[in-house]
Formats: sequence, structure tokens, C-alpha cells
Amino acid sequence: MNSEELYSEIKSKGSFLCIGLDTEMDRIPEHLKDHEFPLFEFNRSIIDATHDLAVAYKPNIAFYECQGAGGWLQLEKTIEYIRVNYPRIFIIADAKRGDIGNTSRKYAETFFGRLNCDAVTVAPYMGSDSVQPFLGYEGKWVILLALTSNKGADDFQYLRTGGHEHLFESVLVRSKDWGNAENMMYVVGATRASMLVKVREVVPHHFLLIPGVGAQGGELADVVKYGMNEKCGLLVNSSRAIIYADSSDRFADVARDKAKEIQGEMKRLI
Amino acid sequence: MNSEELYSEIKSKGSFLCIGLDTEMDRIPEHLKDHEFPLFEFNRSIIDATHDLAVAYKPNIAFYECQGAGGWLQLEKTIEYIRVNYPRIFIIADAKRGDIGNTSRKYAETFFGRLNCDAVTVAPYMGSDSVQPFLGYEGKWVILLALTSNKGADDFQYLRTGGHEHLFESVLVRSKDWGNAENMMYVVGATRASMLVKVREVVPHHFLLIPGVGAQGGELADVVKYGMNEKCGLLVNSSRAIIYADSSDRFADVARDKAKEIQGEMKRLI
Repeated sequence: MNSEELYSEIKSKGSFLCIGLDTEMDRIPEHLKDHEFPLFEFNRSIIDATHDLAVAYKPNIAFYECQGAGGWLQLEKTIEYIRVNYPRIFIIADAKRGDIGNTSRKYAETFFGRLNCDAVTVAPYMGSDSVQPFLGYEGKWVILLALTSNKGADDFQYLRTGGHEHLFESVLVRSKDWGNAENMMYVVGATRASMLVKVREVVPHHFLLIPGVGAQGGELADVVKYGMNEKCGLLVNSSRAIIYADSSDRFADVARDKAKEIQGEMKRLI
Repeated sequence: MNSEELYSEIKSKGSFLCIGLDTEMDRIPEHLKDHEFPLFEFNRSIIDATHDLAVAYKPNIAFYECQGAGGWLQLEKTIEYIRVNYPRIFIIADAKRGDIGNTSRKYAETFFGRLNCDAVTVAPYMGSDSVQPFLGYEGKWVILLALTSNKGADDFQYLRTGGHEHLFESVLVRSKDWGNAENMMYVVGATRASMLVKVREVVPHHFLLIPGVGAQGGELADVVKYGMNEKCGLLVNSSRAIIYADSSDRFADVARDKAKEIQGEMKRLI
């Protein structure tokens, strides 16, 4: 999917919502736990209930991997279900991978080849040759970590580097020429929306994936004010606040209500 | 496994060799490809042929993940095979994970709980709360990326940060108090062995996992000269140079010869 197609979906749905599928056995409703594929059944219900309100889904790989081979199967089934039923949805594998070249090539094969995701999150620490293997796939995207929304972001991402910029700015400056605004996006946490100004100075045209709205705090209006560009340029993620809004057999309806609330605000802000 | 037990293995085997199981379908001998579990069959042969020469095995998760659920199953079988047959071997999941707290907890559950590995490699970019969840497991280890052996290490790891040290030194300085020399190790690439001097100034007592000897270049004698400490403190990894030394049905014997060669040099250097 290219940026024009993504933007077209955003306009048509009045939404730049990404729903994070951080699906875990301990938190899904009791009545689903006896299913052969409980994580997949949960995801299917959430996706059916919200597909017209969201432009992207973001399965968090850790939550499937921790169930072993059976978890991977349910991840594959989830992605295939979206591909078959809602082909214009953008699918992000939240994997935060990053390794030397031949290993990154394997990760790229996994997420772009085998799983046919549109994008994968990648960590920058190992530099360009750990990212390049992901950039050779037509219509696929690397979403590189720049500024994350967790407390630990302070440890290294805000360090001042040689040119007196923050490390996360060095990551943006150096990496933006590895690819372009058609195959790279950045993760930028919403916990300090004013930092979006600095981000937009370096990468005005790239899409940004913004976590930290919802369970992690953050303000949608500020994100739009400081982060939106000519093609919207934003995917704002919410995971737990939507998918675990209710734990009864009405969970999917309540998730829809919650997604509708966020999408309504997005529609006003676009 | 604690550091004393690991050191005892190193002394008894005259080896600080870690063998990387970067096992891929395209590179294993033809006659194994028809097996139900070809990656596992390959690993089993390599492990049986080298277990007395190596103190650690390091499966590279990317190479299993790219085979989907079936790949995960073969990873699980490999680890279980080592646990049952060679219980004093140290097992490292080379996963380079790192995410916000609740996601890192899932990764820790996967690699320490479900798979029962001794250690997992973790990327530092997201800071302390992305590492802490791995540190709560008795006898288990985080191996944090400090200085990697790939070309892209230059992009960020050698940046000068506020205190004029390199970023990889900041990672060492800040992270060493997150845990201690009984639950943290560091990845330090061998491509510039002189950097080991700087590393040892900050973390004299920690074990270091050294890639980059073998297929990635690097000199064992220099690594020992600059990196060894009172408990050896080194695990030197070799992957492709050992496991793909031969592609005939004699591959395991040739892998043993290659491992024996490295172990012989290690024994002289200890």
C-alpha cells in the first residue's frame, strides 16, 4: 500500500485510528477461552466490529509469540482474516526487530513475505544495514522507533549527541535518507506532543505512528496540531483502551463504541 | 545458571565458545530437507557433535520465526533437546527484543518461561523499563546490546553523547545498575577489539558476548587480551563458520573439526 492509498482510506473513513491487537489469554472474555483459537476468535470479533472505524490494525507480536507455535498460528490467521475480508486495511507487525543484515533479511521475509503485513516496527540501535533489508519490498514499510512513549525513553532517546540534538533527532536525521516517505514511517510517542514540532522539522512528509494515546496518556488534539501534514501523516494507535473496554460477551460492541468515540474526534480534527 | 556455574563449565571444557544456530532451510544439507523437522534434525546433529567443545548455543530466533508456527516448534524442540541431553549448556535466545514494560514482560515469559532459555539478547533503545521485566527471573540473564559488529554500528553507537563518551558507553554506564553481573551481560562486537578496553573500564566483572569472530572477522587473541576478566567473562560466538563448514552428509563431523580448532585456541588462551 502506498501513502496515497493510505491517505485515501483516512479521508474516506474520517479516521487515522490504528487498533493495537495486544491480545492476551488472561484478558479475553471467559467464554472465548474454550475455543480452539481463542486469540484469533477475539481478534475476529474486534476486527468485524471496528473495521469501518480504523484504517490499521497492529498485532503486537510478543502476545502471540508467548503462546509458542499455537500463538504464531493465531497471528497468521488474524492477518489472513484481515487480508481476505478487509483488503484495504493497513497491517502493522509490532515486532521492534533489528539485527545484522542477514538476520534482518529473515525478519523481513517473515513479516512481509510469509505474513504479508504492510509494515513492521524496527529498532534503530544497530544502524542502516539492520534496516535496509526491510526496504527492498515494494509497497511495504519500515516504522522506525524514534521517540517512544514509555518512561525509559528518557534513558537514551533524549541524550544530547555531538551536534547538540537529541539522540531521537539524530535517528531521524540519519535514517531519513535510508529510504523515503514511501517506505519509512516513524514511531513518535505522544507523551510530549511538543516534541512533534522537532520531528516535523526533520521529516515533514513521513507518516508517524503515534502510540501513547489512551492507556498511556496523551492528547489527540495536540498530536494533530503539531503532527498532521498535507496527507494527514498520522496513524494514532490505541490498544487496551479499545479492545479491553469490556470483558463480557458484549466486548466487541463496547470496543466499537470506544473506537467510534475516538474516530468521531478524529473526523472533527482532520 | 549463575556466573560461577558458567565459569566452572568454561574451565572444565577449556572453552568459552558459543555456537550460533542460525539454521536456515537454504543452507542445510540436501539429505535433511525431507525430514519432518529439518532445522531441528540439523541442530541435533550439530549439538551432538560439538556439545563437549562449546559452553553455549545461541539459536537466532529470526531463522525459526521465518518458518512460521512450524519454525517455532523446531526452535522449542532444539532447546528442549539441549536441556534434556546436555543440561549444563547455557542457552541464549538471540532475539534482540525490547519494548514497553507489559510487552517486554511477554517476551520474558516466552524466552525464560515457555522456552526456558538462560539468556535473551535485548536492545537498549527504549531504556530501563524495557529491560527490567527480563531481570526478575532467578538465574536468567539479559544480554544487552552495547557495541555490535555490523557496519551500521557506526550510525549511532559511536555518536558522542553529552558527557563526550560514545553512545555505547552511555548504554553501559546507565544500564549497569539496572541489574548486576549476575543477571546482565553485554554484546560487544569484536571488530574493534581495542574498544574492549573502554568496555572493561565500565563493566569489569560482567560477562561479554562477543560476536564477529569468524564470518564477521575479528581476532580471538585480541579479544582475550582486552576482554578477559577473573572469571573469563567472555562468550565468543561463531555461527556460520562452524555450522556451515561443510554441506555434505559429513557436515556434523566437519563442524566438530572447526569447533575443535577454535576450542583448542581458546584452551591455550585461558
